[in-house]
Amino acid sequence: MSLLSLPHTESVSLSTGSTVTIEARPLVCFFNEPHLQVDFHTEMKEDSDIAFHFQVYFGNRVVMNSREYRTWKEEVESKNMPFQDGQEFELRILVLEDKYQVMVNGQAYYNFNHRIPVSSVKMVQVWRDISLTKFNVSNKR
Amino acid sequence: MSLLSLPHTESVSLSTGSTVTIEARPLVCFFNEPHLQVDFHTEMKEDSDIAFHFQVYFGNRVVMNSREYRTWKEEVESKNMPFQDGQEFELRILVLEDKYQVMVNGQAYYNFNHRIPVSSVKMVQVWRDISLTKFNVSNKR
Ligand SMILES: C[C@@H]1O[C@H](O)[C@@H](O)[C@H](O)[C@@H]1O
Ligand SMILES: C[C@@H]1O[C@H](O)[C@@H](O)[C@H](O)[C@@H]1O
Repeated sequence: MSLLSLPHTESVSLSTGSTVTIEARPLVCFFNEPHLQVDFHTEMKEDSDIAFHFQVYFGNRVVMNSREYRTWKEEVESKNMPFQDGQEFELRILVLEDKYQVMVNGQAYYNFNHRIPVSSVKMVQVWRDISLTKFNVSNKR
Repeated sequence: MSLLSLPHTESVSLSTGSTVTIEARPLVCFFNEPHLQVDFHTEMKEDSDIAFHFQVYFGNRVVMNSREYRTWKEEVESKNMPFQDGQEFELRILVLEDKYQVMVNGQAYYNFNHRIPVSSVKMVQVWRDISLTKFNVSNKR
């Protein structure tokens, strides 16, 4: 299977009903503390604001946040760890009217209320310590 | 220039006079907080103990530590940040009799006293948010 190079940066246009699907595997064992980061940026530039920041500290916790006017806002955290050491996973982020719904391996994981309009999202970046096998955006209406 | 895939894991044998040379570039801008990690492991396995752990939080700080009997020991920190946003750098780790001497772009950066005998080091792993162009070990005596 061919791997996508990292950081994976893709121009997107999202609206209610869109789904972002990521398939990946942590690059090293959880004991060594790999990370995964997914950022929904408001411009094609990587230093732009972030409508939805999703960072996994594998084996430990997940933090979510937004970056507005170049400043990190209130971080929310989940200690629920559905990712398995060494195992490939499927992460899906569903765009609902009022929130992002995060699914891990088909199970609902977390709901993050919109802080910035979804129409502002122009680019998704996926990076840190994973091998990435799939990145897909579907825009069902 | 061809890039080495990450994590880069190499079997090594070190002694006083050895030098580990790494040439790399941060994958994203410092504003997004990329990391670099270099670990001198005591076995070929990535969950083995670590005689010297060197982790750069680009734009922010560097932490060093050892992992003994699977437990992180006393972390030391430097706020000195010789790495430049977006720029390739050369990191050299010189094995001296009593310590590792870290050089960044030819300038002495930090001395980390040996906590575990250098002869125990069997593998070096380089990873996190960089593109790696060179990894070399020389054993001058
Ligand atoms: C990468 C960023 O680091 C900051 O310190 C955190 O407050 C944000 O939530 C985010 O994880
Ligand atoms: C990756 C490790 O995280 C731990 O929390 C730290 O105490 C160690 O120094 C090391 O950086």
